[in-house]
Amino acid sequence: MTADLARQRLDTIRDLAADSGADAAAITRLTDVRWAGGFTGSNGLLIVTPTEAHFVTDGRYDAQARAEVLAAEIHVPGYDLWRHVAESGWVGDRRVAFQSDHLTVAQRERLGSTLPGAEWIGVREMLVEAVAAKTAEEVGRVRYAQEQTCAILESVLPLLQPGMSEREVATELVARHLHAGAERMAFDPIVGAGPNGALPHARAGERTLQTGDLVVIDVGGVFDGYASDLTRTVAIGEPGDAQREAYAAVHRAKAAAIAGVRAGVTGTHLDALARDVLRSAGLADAFSHSLGHGVGLDVHEWPRLSQAVEHTLPEGATVTIEPGVYLPGRFGIRIEDVVAVTASGADNLTPMPDDLLVL
Amino acid sequence: MTADLARQRLDTIRDLAADSGADAAAITRLTDVRWAGGFTGSNGLLIVTPTEAHFVTDGRYDAQARAEVLAAEIHVPGYDLWRHVAESGWVGDRRVAFQSDHLTVAQRERLGSTLPGAEWIGVREMLVEAVAAKTAEEVGRVRYAQEQTCAILESVLPLLQPGMSEREVATELVARHLHAGAERMAFDPIVGAGPNGALPHARAGERTLQTGDLVVIDVGGVFDGYASDLTRTVAIGEPGDAQREAYAAVHRAKAAAIAGVRAGVTGTHLDALARDVLRSAGLADAFSHSLGHGVGLDVHEWPRLSQAVEHTLPEGATVTIEPGVYLPGRFGIRIEDVVAVTASGADNLTPMPDDLLVL
Repeated sequence: MTADLARQRLDTIRDLAADSGADAAAITRLTDVRWAGGFTGSNGLLIVTPTEAHFVTDGRYDAQARAEVLAAEIHVPGYDLWRHVAESGWVGDRRVAFQSDHLTVAQRERLGSTLPGAEWIGVREMLVEAVAAKTAEEVGRVRYAQEQTCAILESVLPLLQPGMSEREVATELVARHLHAGAERMAFDPIVGAGPNGALPHARAGERTLQTGDLVVIDVGGVFDGYASDLTRTVAIGEPGDAQREAYAAVHRAKAAAIAGVRAGVTGTHLDALARDVLRSAGLADAFSHSLGHGVGLDVHEWPRLSQAVEHTLPEGATVTIEPGVYLPGRFGIRIEDVVAVTASGADNLTPMPDDLLVL
Repeated sequence: MTADLARQRLDTIRDLAADSGADAAAITRLTDVRWAGGFTGSNGLLIVTPTEAHFVTDGRYDAQARAEVLAAEIHVPGYDLWRHVAESGWVGDRRVAFQSDHLTVAQRERLGSTLPGAEWIGVREMLVEAVAAKTAEEVGRVRYAQEQTCAILESVLPLLQPGMSEREVATELVARHLHAGAERMAFDPIVGAGPNGALPHARAGERTLQTGDLVVIDVGGVFDGYASDLTRTVAIGEPGDAQREAYAAVHRAKAAAIAGVRAGVTGTHLDALARDVLRSAGLADAFSHSLGHGVGLDVHEWPRLSQAVEHTLPEGATVTIEPGVYLPGRFGIRIEDVVAVTASGADNLTPMPDDLLVL
């Protein structure tokens, strides 16, 4: 990140505040604070007025803030950041946009008493579109994270054999992510073998892999702040015809959705492209979730790619494409890539084969 | 958990709602939903009226809710749980207590439009005291988690040697927790070697252990929902006198605080017992955080043991006692146990030596 980019983003915040009828903004969501100014610590907020920008954190992050934060004045009072905001007079009687889908009711009440002169204007999803439209550098970071996770999953797959538990597979994935430099996992890995694969939210449990199982593995790590998100489904021993046919349909559904990606299309349209393929295969009802979601500083961010909500994909968005089918009591299949949205199509950030691998 | 206990807890919620002038309550914080009714999934809420209790979740958790939830009627509509609450008429024009330190402003606004007849009464820390006062079974679960983490840390310490990185130590701790059956880590392990130990919030980085380092290791896992939290500081090679003296002071500070634990004392009193010991050793300023916090379904829960807030410890609370000293640029030391608060004293749940271990 450069100071120029940070200044541009502060201007974006100013514009969005103005769109809400505010003449200042309080950015409190940590990933948004990081997006706007580069701070990677666990406590801090940003106050943006038409002519100023103030970053406030606590004493633990003094040196870190001075090394990281760009284009905003840095303030390191004690632990009560809002008291400092009040005493500094930046807000006064301004109309201040705040992130109403981040602050709790109790935090909002406290703002009212700590800064009684201001008028507080709650804004939902204030920065989501701006955050979604990533720079080339940010796309590169998502790509790096996705490449790491692909390499790790490829290194773990040869270990899978009958008798190994779901949990053991997950533990290998976690250990190899940490060894490879992940700050943490983006989410607890999902390893669903046989009928457990039909539970899209299943974690990794004590079930052991058995010959004939399909195994759904969904894993992501956080590298330098940016998340990966990868799903592959592999077979332990030769799968049956129903499994092969369903796999082929999910594979085609992913390809159809990715072929439709370009800046300006809606997630709903892409979801429909995948769903139509599965419908033709008689599997529409078995695709029980939406097609995908944005990935970046948060592993689940705007836009959604779903039937329910129509979001238009901006250039630079990095999104998952993850169709799946789930046949209760039998098996599940999901295949998931992350792609970057370009003006002309999709830049697939997922360098890993997606044909059915039989182990 | 038994249905009787769940019924008692629903009555506790009713009493606390009445204390706030409400005649119903909406419990939305997932660990509180679990505390009240046993549900371990990731989406659900509880509506409690004077004569009824309704648990609502989405279709992913149908079977799980029916297997887990006690003493409440189970409802599994689509994804819009609040729409179902509205249509069911349980709330009507009641005064409903909600957890204002959990719901966001945007969620609260949505309640107003989805259930316009009700009067919503925000309550902070509604259940924290009730949740803190654990049953013997719950104390047993915290004890089990703490025992596991002690055994894991004891198994990892012999691996430490000059040249091993902080990150490698952390990775071993994570992998062994997952192997031992932890659902996940309670937090990313802290491994701070040499001067990094003086940063209480440092994670585990690329620094390698060096002869002469003190290494602060703070680690916890989640086993069957309940968290552990353990810190030990070990020496790589013979430490100097300043390090030994500071270690001995922190060791005495922990012992003094634990000796003062019993139901009815305040966390502030216990913090002062530890702080006084460190003051006598000339290290008062180097103890830059508070003494401890509750541990249970959340790794940080009520009560706080701090100078700033005076919480009285109830019988059955499980709390950390974790004095530390941090000398910037030199070294840090922290020693942390989890103890259960009894009527007559502390039941230490941490079966691990706390003398300075020289590796």
